Amino acid sequence: MNVITLKPPYLIFLGDVTELTYAKTGAGLAQWRPDACAGQLSLVKPGLALGLPDMNVEQAIAANVGSLIIGTATVGGVIPESWLDTLIEAAEAGLDIVSGAHGRLQDNPRLAAAAQKSGARLVDVRVPPAGLPVASGKKRSGKRLLTVGTDCAVGKKYTALALHAALKNAGMDADFRASGQTGIMISGQGIPMDSVVSDFLSGAAELLSPDNSPEHWDIIEGQGAIIHPAYGAVSVGLLMGSQPDAFVVCHEAGRTHIAGWPEIPLVKIAEIILRTVAVGRLTNPAIRCVGVSVNTSALAPDTRATYLQNLERQLGLPCVDPLIEGVDDIIECLVNDSIPEPVE
Amino acid sequence: MNVITLKPPYLIFLGDVTELTYAKTGAGLAQWRPDACAGQLSLVKPGLALGLPDMNVEQAIAANVGSLIIGTATVGGVIPESWLDTLIEAAEAGLDIVSGAHGRLQDNPRLAAAAQKSGARLVDVRVPPAGLPVASGKKRSGKRLLTVGTDCAVGKKYTALALHAALKNAGMDADFRASGQTGIMISGQGIPMDSVVSDFLSGAAELLSPDNSPEHWDIIEGQGAIIHPAYGAVSVGLLMGSQPDAFVVCHEAGRTHIAGWPEIPLVKIAEIILRTVAVGRLTNPAIRCVGVSVNTSALAPDTRATYLQNLERQLGLPCVDPLIEGVDDIIECLVNDSIPEPVE
Repeated sequence: MNVITLKPPYLIFLGDVTELTYAKTGAGLAQWRPDACAGQLSLVKPGLALGLPDMNVEQAIAANVGSLIIGTATVGGVIPESWLDTLIEAAEAGLDIVSGAHGRLQDNPRLAAAAQKSGARLVDVRVPPAGLPVASGKKRSGKRLLTVGTDCAVGKKYTALALHAALKNAGMDADFRASGQTGIMISGQGIPMDSVVSDFLSGAAELLSPDNSPEHWDIIEGQGAIIHPAYGAVSVGLLMGSQPDAFVVCHEAGRTHIAGWPEIPLVKIAEIILRTVAVGRLTNPAIRCVGVSVNTSALAPDTRATYLQNLERQLGLPCVDPLIEGVDDIIECLVNDSIPEPVE
Repeated sequence: MNVITLKPPYLIFLGDVTELTYAKTGAGLAQWRPDACAGQLSLVKPGLALGLPDMNVEQAIAANVGSLIIGTATVGGVIPESWLDTLIEAAEAGLDIVSGAHGRLQDNPRLAAAAQKSGARLVDVRVPPAGLPVASGKKRSGKRLLTVGTDCAVGKKYTALALHAALKNAGMDADFRASGQTGIMISGQGIPMDSVVSDFLSGAAELLSPDNSPEHWDIIEGQGAIIHPAYGAVSVGLLMGSQPDAFVVCHEAGRTHIAGWPEIPLVKIAEIILRTVAVGRLTNPAIRCVGVSVNTSALAPDTRATYLQNLERQLGLPCVDPLIEGVDDIIECLVNDSIPEPVE
């Protein structure tokens, strides 16, 4: 399969970072994949605590770790000199080195030499796999749900992970399908859709959620927003290739304009639904919205319940903050076929 | 400017090809850019006649030719051994070598060495320029028209070239903006949109038709079709970044299904118009359809007039075969602001 695939279990490398806000990838891995995280490696004391055992490279080898994952952001995507000795030690010992930064691991000659010697892989999860196909448009077996957004960074990955976890908890057969670098690290596989050449975008999306058993759900991490002035095409390509049966709209309460584009107002959730259905119908006529996932952290505690109730009344769909209400209402709507039509 | 730019005038290289159908690029150049074509070079006698003077490399140098353009298709995108001596001779003499094939010129070591020695460029027009930006979504000055399609290969490039020629004939200020390899060769510059990484697709489209004087028209070559199962995202990215004021729908009469996707029916022209307006409004609320360009070659001569009349009645827009009626009716609709609204 032409998707990036990581080798578990993982050693989460935290470098010299001491603030959680610069270690979102590592924290996401510890939260969503505790089973796959063998330990953490910090270069400073006291380092960050992700709740994992501290472990050096030697201990990681003894614990059969497969990959060292760089769990922190790097300035300008370049690996700091002070990290390099440890990364080289890990590569020499045969651990895959995994990075989500813009800079390529392979471009560091010492690291590249160490990996070549041991046979370890240098995996840049922002680099799409080679040989991606053109989309076929053919219907695939199994069921699919895609998270879509009113904008970037509104909880599409989080919502997909929460939906996947809820389905698994309910004893259903499901996979999380990652379409961005952090999602790929959490999932252990996936395709960074925004880095795929345009001609192969929908083909990559088809590959991401292949044929499966009839009752199986692929929960696909969305990208961008269908109305986004820069990334709309990525959202459309992912939507057309995913052929979702269902989708959930993700939104951040209080956001009024596209983040970084202060002159471009967001469109209403109802319009996102209509546009998503219009495009999604091209490859799956049965597509339907099954809920709205809202980050309500910007709302005062006494207004958030009213906000979600008003939204539910407007749209006729379950509207939840996944961190507070959880996603059970959406799962119920997903499993139940009789969904009210959206109303403006 | 981050667009591919070719150095005229051109020597059209025809290799050992003797059938016009395998020399579409060369024929397109001779038809649309006779001013830029200094001559043709065939390796066989009698070779193809594009109506250009026969010229060897030495004569081309004497005629101040800037680029040798490979005007023929290659099998699998690989340069045949029998062509190589001539291409190397041209590169050694300082001519840029231009190819639209999938294989990269740079991958041929002898050709690469020859070019490096003389300073000639090896230009693969399928390879997008480096450093493309993310779209800004900002409105640009000047006016823009985009050709869109009901499918691939329905005359989007031809129609754009015909509209550009008609505007120039009418004494108006206009540029043809190429978004695919053959268009880039004809225009001498452009960006191959389908090869651009998804994140930068709309940014590349913005770059393709930069700020211009208020009455200037950019006539932008479209790609794919907004409803295409594989290439829809390319069409959407180009549409959003182009911010067109006007668009023309291109169609081939008699085509019932997506070419190469026999199970996927085409949608009606009226639906293409509505979908294009819905997406185009996101970056230019004033977008409007100004006509339909139909390839009627598959229709019997006595039915084509009726076909176009029925279409005009349905859509309330000028509907022409650009090879037969020309595009003057569309130009009139473009210049005249009061366009009837499309009716289903």
